[in-house]
Amino acid sequence: MELKPGRFFLIRVPSGSELISYIKKCAEDLGISVGIFWLIGSFRRAKIGFFMEEEGSYRTIDVNEFTEVINASGNISSIDGEPFIHAHVALGRMDGSCIGGHLIEGEVFIVEVWIQELIGGGLKRVKEGSLYLWPLE
Amino acid sequence: MELKPGRFFLIRVPSGSELISYIKKCAEDLGISVGIFWLIGSFRRAKIGFFMEEEGSYRTIDVNEFTEVINASGNISSIDGEPFIHAHVALGRMDGSCIGGHLIEGEVFIVEVWIQELIGGGLKRVKEGSLYLWPLE
Amino acid sequence: MELKPGRFFLIRVPSGSELISYIKKCAEDLGISVGIFWLIGSFRRAKIGFFMEEEGSYRTIDVNEFTEVINASGNISSIDGEPFIHAHVALGRMDGSCIGGHLIEGEVFIVEVWIQELIGGGLKRVKEGSLYLWPLE
Repeated sequence: MELKPGRFFLIRVPSGSELISYIKKCAEDLGISVGIFWLIGSFRRAKIGFFMEEEGSYRTIDVNEFTEVINASGNISSIDGEPFIHAHVALGRMDGSCIGGHLIEGEVFIVEVWIQELIGGGLKRVKEGSLYLWPLE
Repeated sequence: MELKPGRFFLIRVPSGSELISYIKKCAEDLGISVGIFWLIGSFRRAKIGFFMEEEGSYRTIDVNEFTEVINASGNISSIDGEPFIHAHVALGRMDGSCIGGHLIEGEVFIVEVWIQELIGGGLKRVKEGSLYLWPLE
Repeated sequence: MELKPGRFFLIRVPSGSELISYIKKCAEDLGISVGIFWLIGSFRRAKIGFFMEEEGSYRTIDVNEFTEVINASGNISSIDGEPFIHAHVALGRMDGSCIGGHLIEGEVFIVEVWIQELIGGGLKRVKEGSLYLWPLE
């Protein structure tokens, strides 16, 4: 799907925010219905997921420690008219070792995010099996 | 090299595709000769490489398991007039541990990719030692 | 903060360069005061940091081996009128295992970087506790 760049935002996420809900609120407040984003920073704790294809559900991994957010990136689309934030993340521990996957939630210490709005078309996720996916073209 | 943004695409890659050849085919079909891309998703299996400077070749690592694609990013340039896809990838295993490097191939379960075409100049890779590289400026 | 895209650059970083100072020099030479960047490549060695919240300082990890730069991304802002490069990095070792965090320095073997300049506003970091941060909005 071809889209056009809309507005561009650089945002520092306040300490203590939960990242996914914060980006969702940004999308709602700024009226972004489609977009992509990237971020770096650090988390006080996080929850990540690994998709279990046979079960059709995510295995959850709790990261109960301070980590560097090496990167997270993802996209803003919609499910049933509401913004949906899909992000994956790589986290670095104190010894530099990495843990990562689908980002379920992250408690922000410091996060710097850049968001590119995309205009000229909607991007709706529709249920396919146990996942909400974009249409294939 | 200064370039200008061209078209922008958000694409869901069909399950079962091999990712690098799929992006190459996108570049050919859409007529993208220079571009950059990012993606998240999951792979059923993958093959990554680690460059051995002394040997001048890649050591290959087979990832024969389902992984979350934490991120992959790269660029579209050309070698001998044909699109060349250079991508690196970080993969997350079931326990959240990460494996990554140069992406040789990945069998897609689900991948969401965004591609920014760049116009106003070609980007040709030329052989230097054992690698195909962009010119230094 | 809403900004507008300015110029866009694709740059191959010369072998042997220290990456952070190279990007800083690019920002100075090209007159980029705000921007974002992404890169892939490989390092001959690197130094990464993990922020110790209680100490208010970075623990340093020396990566004294050749690694694939799986990705690094970050932003260009300023401290006291001088460009400041904030980047995080994920590195892949010979066995594919990953190490990552805040990028302090990296000795380039090959790096391909893309830089998006952002215009229409300054982005100044101001000291908050022991860190230099963007203003909250």
